[in-house]
Amino acid sequence: MSIAVIYGGNRPDGNVETLTKLVIQGLMVEEIYLKDYLIQPIIDKRHTEEGFSNINDDYNAIIDRILPHDILIFSTPIYWYSMTGIMKNFIDRWSQTLRDPDYPDFKALMSSKKAYVIAVGGDEPYIKGLPMIQQFQYIFDFIGTKFEAYIVGEGNKPGDILQDLKVLSATNLLKNELAGNE
Amino acid sequence: MSIAVIYGGNRPDGNVETLTKLVIQGLMVEEIYLKDYLIQPIIDKRHTEEGFSNINDDYNAIIDRILPHDILIFSTPIYWYSMTGIMKNFIDRWSQTLRDPDYPDFKALMSSKKAYVIAVGGDEPYIKGLPMIQQFQYIFDFIGTKFEAYIVGEGNKPGDILQDLKVLSATNLLKNELAGNE
Amino acid sequence: MSIAVIYGGNRPDGNVETLTKLVIQGLMVEEIYLKDYLIQPIIDKRHTEEGFSNINDDYNAIIDRILPHDILIFSTPIYWYSMTGIMKNFIDRWSQTLRDPDYPDFKALMSSKKAYVIAVGGDEPYIKGLPMIQQFQYIFDFIGTKFEAYIVGEGNKPGDILQDLKVLSATNLLKNELAGNE
Amino acid sequence: MSIAVIYGGNRPDGNVETLTKLVIQGLMVEEIYLKDYLIQPIIDKRHTEEGFSNINDDYNAIIDRILPHDILIFSTPIYWYSMTGIMKNFIDRWSQTLRDPDYPDFKALMSSKKAYVIAVGGDEPYIKGLPMIQQFQYIFDFIGTKFEAYIVGEGNKPGDILQDLKVLSATNLLKNELAGNE
Repeated sequence: MSIAVIYGGNRPDGNVETLTKLVIQGLMVEEIYLKDYLIQPIIDKRHTEEGFSNINDDYNAIIDRILPHDILIFSTPIYWYSMTGIMKNFIDRWSQTLRDPDYPDFKALMSSKKAYVIAVGGDEPYIKGLPMIQQFQYIFDFIGTKFEAYIVGEGNKPGDILQDLKVLSATNLLKNELAGNE
Repeated sequence: MSIAVIYGGNRPDGNVETLTKLVIQGLMVEEIYLKDYLIQPIIDKRHTEEGFSNINDDYNAIIDRILPHDILIFSTPIYWYSMTGIMKNFIDRWSQTLRDPDYPDFKALMSSKKAYVIAVGGDEPYIKGLPMIQQFQYIFDFIGTKFEAYIVGEGNKPGDILQDLKVLSATNLLKNELAGNE
Repeated sequence: MSIAVIYGGNRPDGNVETLTKLVIQGLMVEEIYLKDYLIQPIIDKRHTEEGFSNINDDYNAIIDRILPHDILIFSTPIYWYSMTGIMKNFIDRWSQTLRDPDYPDFKALMSSKKAYVIAVGGDEPYIKGLPMIQQFQYIFDFIGTKFEAYIVGEGNKPGDILQDLKVLSATNLLKNELAGNE
Repeated sequence: MSIAVIYGGNRPDGNVETLTKLVIQGLMVEEIYLKDYLIQPIIDKRHTEEGFSNINDDYNAIIDRILPHDILIFSTPIYWYSMTGIMKNFIDRWSQTLRDPDYPDFKALMSSKKAYVIAVGGDEPYIKGLPMIQQFQYIFDFIGTKFEAYIVGEGNKPGDILQDLKVLSATNLLKNELAGNE
């Protein structure tokens, strides 16, 4: 099993990155920091005559990097009760790839993958982060990816997350699960 | 009462824009199309020594346009079960404005406003759009804005929304409510 | 199309009953007030050797009354952010009927029906009633019933609901929809 | 700190009971099995002239047993994506107690408590149990109780839950947390 991590955060050494590093420690993982790429917002041309235009940015390069992997880990801080805008722009573009003749197998490939979500928020994420988890479920249902599990932790300042014993315990179990799948 | 509409969509004459135009027909409204502006994703520097940096984009100009108004209408297509990435990037930046010495009254001003959400989605939005509505509630609770009402409609192709009698009826009521507040 | 209404409330002339009566006005409808029946809570014997026991109460009589109909309207006040305990006990018992040799076609019959939910709550039902709507969706998905639409209104004192123009408008549309299906 | 457990299940040795017993092992706890009591559904008389009538059942006896404790653990199987009808009927009656002159301090007393929820479901409870968790949050917000934490596990047949390492790990942490509070 091969693993890609998609980081949605925009802060070096943020809590969710710290947590994700604990999960993937010792594993071969392709790490993708969305903040390092230019990802244009989607321009919805599903119903235009000409269809979608090619966009001159890094989005397809990211898709090319994640498609070969069996497991995708979406790692995002919870900003305003949801995934970051960067990660949302990335996912919004899937609507284009679903119609892109250069990616005829996009949905089939996504359907063969498993997904995990790791998220950290500062304002009661165990409750107020739940709508985001429901949205990820809808997203994965649509694209066909199996939503294996999620981890939600609480933290504000970098390092906070290391005080959250509950999430560290869940992290450790996920680490073992992923290691066992290698 | 003065009204600003914040459009999150990225398609000319999309369904949610059509619906929103019905609501604001005949009213004096400031219309802001986020797609026409450059809005950088937030770089979270809440916990750095230097704090947030000034960002060279159009974000503050948008804030300057919305702050004078009493009512904010967030008008967004539902992409992947949530607001668009463009609109999310706009809201993510509020975390910076909350700490920006140039906007010392940002939260106080937002707390005096009322908000409406108008959203249109193509995949069972009456159910699968509900987590987004819950997130808007959390967002408005945090910033202090009163969440007056929301309208969710169903549509895919441009014009679809004009077949959704239920949402047109809600739209008409909202139109009258806003007109009555003038 | 033939219609049954299942009332979960326990107050004469409560707001949700008022609203439901507006919807079904002029239609032939079988009205079932759960409060008038004895419905025992389920005793979960799915995994016992002997299986479920026959229960000496009115539950099966209610099932017999709803099964012949094409459309089921679940009409419930929102108590503590969810359907009433009476209605919940009624639905809990479906787990028994699903395994009851006297009702071999229960799931098939339920799968051919359409369902509507009408609910009224006093504490921000447009937001805080949404988890209940999501639960109804899961319930109908499981049993195979098509969840056609829901109406949520706001009210406390009897009669309050007649001031909620938005819900009255939705009610009127639902009334026309049901009348058109006759 | 003194603890009461309120069991909503109706099956001997069900999964959620097993899980709860692991949490409270070695602690002094008052255990209340709602199924052993007669709890009438609420008759909503909030807006009648005469007000609520005294109900001849066991409900008040249960309230008397839980009020002295600092911590309440709500332990419920997830039936049809929510708490059991028995537990819901119990909570519905709080509306009466809030207006009962025999319990003038009901809300104040509840506001001084902490609550935990332990729940086990068979159909993707990590996703489909989330609306129930949101409802518990609204319930506790209304009554003033602090919602400390929740544990959701997956299981159908008795004993299943002992295979769910993730929930056992969370259980162990909660056990230590409660033991530390003694």
